[in-house]
Amino acid sequence: MRFSGAGGQGVILSSVLLAKAYGLGENYYITQTQSYGPEARGGACKAEVVISDEDIDYIKVDDADVFIAFNQMGYDKYRNKTRENGMVLINSTLVEAEDEKAYRIPATEMAEEMGKSFAVNMVMLGALTKLLPKIFYPTVEAEIKENFTAPIAEANLAAYSMGYKYMEKIVTEKNN
Amino acid sequence: MRFSGAGGQGVILSSVLLAKAYGLGENYYITQTQSYGPEARGGACKAEVVISDEDIDYIKVDDADVFIAFNQMGYDKYRNKTRENGMVLINSTLVEAEDEKAYRIPATEMAEEMGKSFAVNMVMLGALTKLLPKIFYPTVEAEIKENFTAPIAEANLAAYSMGYKYMEKIVTEKNN
Repeated sequence: MRFSGAGGQGVILSSVLLAKAYGLGENYYITQTQSYGPEARGGACKAEVVISDEDIDYIKVDDADVFIAFNQMGYDKYRNKTRENGMVLINSTLVEAEDEKAYRIPATEMAEEMGKSFAVNMVMLGALTKLLPKIFYPTVEAEIKENFTAPIAEANLAAYSMGYKYMEKIVTEKNN
Repeated sequence: MRFSGAGGQGVILSSVLLAKAYGLGENYYITQTQSYGPEARGGACKAEVVISDEDIDYIKVDDADVFIAFNQMGYDKYRNKTRENGMVLINSTLVEAEDEKAYRIPATEMAEEMGKSFAVNMVMLGALTKLLPKIFYPTVEAEIKENFTAPIAEANLAAYSMGYKYMEKIVTEKNN
C-alpha cells in the first residue's frame, strides 16, 4: 500500500497505525516505510506498508496494490504507480481527478466540519479500513486508543468512525 | 543501517531521528523501515535506514553496512547479517559478545546513572553520530529538539551528548 499526501496531514501516522493493526494478527509480516530527503521536502510525503504471509526480505517499492492520496500532488505523482486492478482511495476535498476506479471521500471537509481538522488522516483510515480485506474496525480502533492519550484518542476515534461509516454507505450503494 | 533491540528501548525512534537528520541535507534519499508482526512480537524490534544519493526504488534488507544492537537478542539475531567490513555498535550493558569489530558503549548503565533510563536510545544515537560519516552533532541535536517538548528534549539531549562524548573518547584513544 502506498500513502501519499502533504506533510502535516498525518500520512505517515495513518500508515503506521494500519501496519500495527495488521501486526496484531498472528499471520502477517508487516513493514512500514517512509521517506525523507529530497522527495520529502517541498511538502510531499509518502509512506508504504507491505503485508505478507512470509518474512519480507526485499521491499519492492513498485506498483502498489492499494493507493491512498491525501492531496493532489500525491495523487498526480503516484497514481500511475498503482496496479491496474489496484484499489484507489482519494481525499476528494483536495484531489480532483477523473478516475473511475477511485473511491472518494471528502476527508478534509468532514474533519473540518467536525471541528477536528487535524483528523483528516483518521477519516481516511476509517474509509480504508472499510475497503481493505482482513482488517476489521475494532482492530484499528484498538490501535488508535493505544497510540493517543484520552482526549485526542476520542477525537480521532470519532473521525475514524465517520470515515468508516461514510465508506460503508458508498460500498453498500455500489453493491445494490 | 540496521537497528535491533527490545520493544520499549526506543530503537525505532532512534532510527527515525537519524533518518530525519540525514534528510535535512540536500543530497540524500532516505527511507526508514520498521517491522511489525511475528518478528516484532516477543519483544524483538528492528528498524532499518537506507541512505542513498539516488532515488531508492528497491529496499534490499540484506547485509547491513552499519549494525546497532541494543540488546543480546538483537545482536544474536542480526550480527551475521552485517557486511564483513561493516560497522558494529553495541550496548555493552546488555550485549555480551567476543566481537573485535564492535564499538561498545554501556548505554543502559549510562542512561540509568543519569536517572534517565528512558534515554538509552539517545546515548546510542550520540555514539552512532560520532561514528557515522556525513552526519554531524548539531544536525541530530536539532532533530531531537524538534521531536520532543522542552523538558524531555533537554533530558534526551543530555543523554545524546553523553553518548557522543563517550564514543569520541574511544575513537580518539583508538587513533592514538
